[in-house]
Amino acid sequence: MMNFCLFGAGRIGKIHAANVALNGNAALRHVVDVDAAAAGDLAARHGAAVSDADSALGDPAVDAVIITSSTDTHKTLVEQACRAGKAVFCEKPVDLDSARVREVLSVVEETGVPFFVAFNRRFDPSFAALQKKVRDGRVGKVEQVIITSRDPGPPPVGYIKASGGLFRDMMIHDFDMARWLLGEEPTEVYAVASCMVDPAIGEAGDVDTAAVTLRTASGAFCQITNSRRAVYGYDQRVEVFGSAGMLRAGNRTATTVEYSGGEGVATDKPLDFFLERYAEAYRIELDRFIEAVGKGEKPSPGGEDGLRSLLLADAATESARSGKPVPV
Amino acid sequence: MMNFCLFGAGRIGKIHAANVALNGNAALRHVVDVDAAAAGDLAARHGAAVSDADSALGDPAVDAVIITSSTDTHKTLVEQACRAGKAVFCEKPVDLDSARVREVLSVVEETGVPFFVAFNRRFDPSFAALQKKVRDGRVGKVEQVIITSRDPGPPPVGYIKASGGLFRDMMIHDFDMARWLLGEEPTEVYAVASCMVDPAIGEAGDVDTAAVTLRTASGAFCQITNSRRAVYGYDQRVEVFGSAGMLRAGNRTATTVEYSGGEGVATDKPLDFFLERYAEAYRIELDRFIEAVGKGEKPSPGGEDGLRSLLLADAATESARSGKPVPV
Amino acid sequence: MMNFCLFGAGRIGKIHAANVALNGNAALRHVVDVDAAAAGDLAARHGAAVSDADSALGDPAVDAVIITSSTDTHKTLVEQACRAGKAVFCEKPVDLDSARVREVLSVVEETGVPFFVAFNRRFDPSFAALQKKVRDGRVGKVEQVIITSRDPGPPPVGYIKASGGLFRDMMIHDFDMARWLLGEEPTEVYAVASCMVDPAIGEAGDVDTAAVTLRTASGAFCQITNSRRAVYGYDQRVEVFGSAGMLRAGNRTATTVEYSGGEGVATDKPLDFFLERYAEAYRIELDRFIEAVGKGEKPSPGGEDGLRSLLLADAATESARSGKPVPV
Amino acid sequence: MMNFCLFGAGRIGKIHAANVALNGNAALRHVVDVDAAAAGDLAARHGAAVSDADSALGDPAVDAVIITSSTDTHKTLVEQACRAGKAVFCEKPVDLDSARVREVLSVVEETGVPFFVAFNRRFDPSFAALQKKVRDGRVGKVEQVIITSRDPGPPPVGYIKASGGLFRDMMIHDFDMARWLLGEEPTEVYAVASCMVDPAIGEAGDVDTAAVTLRTASGAFCQITNSRRAVYGYDQRVEVFGSAGMLRAGNRTATTVEYSGGEGVATDKPLDFFLERYAEAYRIELDRFIEAVGKGEKPSPGGEDGLRSLLLADAATESARSGKPVPV
Repeated sequence: MMNFCLFGAGRIGKIHAANVALNGNAALRHVVDVDAAAAGDLAARHGAAVSDADSALGDPAVDAVIITSSTDTHKTLVEQACRAGKAVFCEKPVDLDSARVREVLSVVEETGVPFFVAFNRRFDPSFAALQKKVRDGRVGKVEQVIITSRDPGPPPVGYIKASGGLFRDMMIHDFDMARWLLGEEPTEVYAVASCMVDPAIGEAGDVDTAAVTLRTASGAFCQITNSRRAVYGYDQRVEVFGSAGMLRAGNRTATTVEYSGGEGVATDKPLDFFLERYAEAYRIELDRFIEAVGKGEKPSPGGEDGLRSLLLADAATESARSGKPVPV
Repeated sequence: MMNFCLFGAGRIGKIHAANVALNGNAALRHVVDVDAAAAGDLAARHGAAVSDADSALGDPAVDAVIITSSTDTHKTLVEQACRAGKAVFCEKPVDLDSARVREVLSVVEETGVPFFVAFNRRFDPSFAALQKKVRDGRVGKVEQVIITSRDPGPPPVGYIKASGGLFRDMMIHDFDMARWLLGEEPTEVYAVASCMVDPAIGEAGDVDTAAVTLRTASGAFCQITNSRRAVYGYDQRVEVFGSAGMLRAGNRTATTVEYSGGEGVATDKPLDFFLERYAEAYRIELDRFIEAVGKGEKPSPGGEDGLRSLLLADAATESARSGKPVPV
Repeated sequence: MMNFCLFGAGRIGKIHAANVALNGNAALRHVVDVDAAAAGDLAARHGAAVSDADSALGDPAVDAVIITSSTDTHKTLVEQACRAGKAVFCEKPVDLDSARVREVLSVVEETGVPFFVAFNRRFDPSFAALQKKVRDGRVGKVEQVIITSRDPGPPPVGYIKASGGLFRDMMIHDFDMARWLLGEEPTEVYAVASCMVDPAIGEAGDVDTAAVTLRTASGAFCQITNSRRAVYGYDQRVEVFGSAGMLRAGNRTATTVEYSGGEGVATDKPLDFFLERYAEAYRIELDRFIEAVGKGEKPSPGGEDGLRSLLLADAATESARSGKPVPV
Repeated sequence: MMNFCLFGAGRIGKIHAANVALNGNAALRHVVDVDAAAAGDLAARHGAAVSDADSALGDPAVDAVIITSSTDTHKTLVEQACRAGKAVFCEKPVDLDSARVREVLSVVEETGVPFFVAFNRRFDPSFAALQKKVRDGRVGKVEQVIITSRDPGPPPVGYIKASGGLFRDMMIHDFDMARWLLGEEPTEVYAVASCMVDPAIGEAGDVDTAAVTLRTASGAFCQITNSRRAVYGYDQRVEVFGSAGMLRAGNRTATTVEYSGGEGVATDKPLDFFLERYAEAYRIELDRFIEAVGKGEKPSPGGEDGLRSLLLADAATESARSGKPVPV
């Protein structure tokens, strides 16, 4: 049985708490949140205590922490948890500043605690099955990876201002997917970006539409497309092309219903809420973390993955600004 | 909060117990099963007591029962629960003998308890969305309903011997779907059937492959196809054709992965286990039952639906034997 | 080089004339039609002569005839052509009366001329590829065949009155497909039918909506669905289910364009004109006829196929009237 | 009636000759080819004369020319035809050198003859329907265009050496599609390219795998992916994403057959020969040329389109070499 302390009782914290309950080998012991009411509700629902960080991390019964609080708190909490010897499940990004991420990683290394960065898409059943087939050689040598990632609609501008920008906030998921699917590290990043969805995003200094090309040492490349708005739902697709074939994973829909009428044939648009689209991925990533820590294995993706995706996001940010490819 | 007693701690009982736990307004109080170990395991998992029928039904804290024990116990348990004033969620079939079902229904009516027959397919998100569109007039007047229902593989012959035969055990789901989608009652049944999957099924007096035509007073008809074996998974499809268009709901797959290679393009076969294929339907049907009883509404489908589907199964059984259409 | 005389310069005659021109080994020599203007136009377009039946059949340069004139003329023309020693390509049906078809077949047999009945659907690339896979054993033993055949809209009532009724005029194609896909002869026919599309069709003594079940000696069966109207186009689908899998062939569309918008995902409706839907099939059936006759092989489908499909249509007509299954 | 002289009796010349015959308002008068046997065969098949360029262009009965001879002959032939007052249908590219293309265009302008550059993909029914919907505003403001273009296999290295390189030979089609779909001119090109299919292509100084990003003044962009080899067939897809939705056109297959077996569900791979994939497009482009010239309208795409696509190919070639984005 793995006992958890959860930091952050917001939307994603609730998801992880429910998934702890669904896992047969885990229990939620503490909930920590600056919003006492939110912490209290969630703790009550799962038979956990409302605590502060010090007391929760001081509880010897706690084996692991889940960190879903705001990004600026991650570094301190991860480091505290590491020093307290608790395994760490940390929402992405570890931090928006790569220098600070490196500091976190050195504490992780020094303390030797299991450290997991929650790139949930790797655990989506379709993407996971696709990546396994790639690793099994179904497409031969990987030559081209195409990632489409479009959100149903933009977040509030207030969120965007603190987000680190589209590349660090949104495309960072795709950078992780790219590394995972390419099977080798990108060596150069070229980005184009513009503000086409909402001028307020541009006024906040960010972009909402972007395309990136990654190249690798073997000559393979990856193209990523992002938009903060897709009127037809949450558009999340992956294509891997190689010497022996192509693998694709498409969008998911709520139903399989198809209507044939005088105007044509109509089917569902993609699921349009990320918590619904990736519900299984959230559950599976937690199960895998619990399983890995339980077996004494290093959980994956880990801190290095978090750092490398951030470095790609930094390079893309610079490339979009300068108009030139940026080596990594 | 609705407190439940569960009869039957087998495969489907466990599903319903887990769904009680997922519903925010319900709790499992008692588990009753002749297999004490199974009852004990399941009760322990959900903080319930292991009980016998009398004590469980005598507990004034129990609001409702879920009956998943063997079919031959349904009648007695439903009647007992009714007389104890407990709302009843009963797995199909109510009984294999329509005369006995009528007796049950008269007890239900006399006692006035809410009575639900668990035709889970009505709650599958795709079938439910399709049926709603039919009711909303998207296909105009319904003229043809086509139902495909093929299991991945046959149950053990021992099960088949006690099942009442393919029409009462398997196609009964499709008869319920047919009535629900046609929106009117079939007036005649014609069935052809054969034993093509396993000679042992034929030796047990049953068939494993069947096709039925239902006709209605309006001139609409329904065609149903059943097989006890589909090597490619659980094949469950529905098509409704009418004056203004056609609606179809297809199979569900585990992933959206598509492989393009030298031989062609390959995708997942359908999910091949009914508990997985209908996982959402099982959860939703229980939620709907709890919601209806909580609001004092009559839960649907009810006893009349259970009876009418059984009468269609009886007629199909007779038609397959005699080779002639049978009026209902 | 095979020289043709074409009987009938109407819609389907023009198709065959164009396909003669596309075939590198054939030429059109004569066009015969009671409508002199239509014959003249078509003959001029293809460098052929306008002739009457006697002179055309008397021309020793003519190797073969294509008969697309009205059904009531088929018998006489086939017999004349046979006695003149010309190979015969005859539009279905040979005749609406099975006794008369038998007379034709005895002339065919007596004269030994190649005789082809143009069931064009066998030559559709999708249906042909599917049937080949069935014959190659991909689905194992064939157990269930499901045929959907719905026209975009009904023909004029005047046409319907002379058509022999839905089973002989429309479903006869599906009876041919059923025999071809089952790989064995149906032994019993059960039909339900109604008039739901247009009351005028009912007043003319015909039906417009029908479903048929065929059973065979091996225990396999076939279900056929017909409607004279599908608002979404020409709905022509086939499904063959067996011990080792399932094969399906679906509708064809004009384009592969898919639109994802706020309301869902929309694609083309099926092609809605039979000459467009089966354009390739018409071309290929003529090529195959020319090839078979050129090689001295018996063209297929032949007269026996025409007769057997008509006998199934007769049985279905009787079953729909009597409400009882009819042995064949 | 439009009378044609065809230059080039090779593979693509035969296609155009057959399409002249299918068009009701056109005839082939002359065939010119250095290979006398090829010219003779094709001329005989279509009732045309074998001629040399001077006599063919001197024939006052000739209205138009089709130029499918080798690229290095295009400039001279186009200019000769222009000065002879014949409308010109010219295979792409006009020339591999943009300075020479400008010279051709000045002759076209000076002589005022209709000049058509045969970018056949614009006439593919799916791409044409998609582009029409884009122009009709179905996706709102175009923000992202994604073009996938992969050949089944590479041409001989001898062909590649004279081809001008992948960007001018293969991706030039995609540059034309990009301009046509974006609805505005690209202002900058960034290309990555490598040799992953065949080392002999690299030894010949060319690449076989490439990805390009185009950006426009409005902030829209286009991503293009090319490979000289796709084991699953001819992969030709287009996606246009905008403020109001997304349009996609996918690959075409020979049949709609779908096989469901124990391993999954299998469908056809894409058509794998470009003459088959674009058969309709070749026919339609010629029909449109004939129609435009007949009505005195300027045929489209024209010389300017040929030039602009070549300039994009030049820029991509330079970008792939320098590793930097290149303004256009």
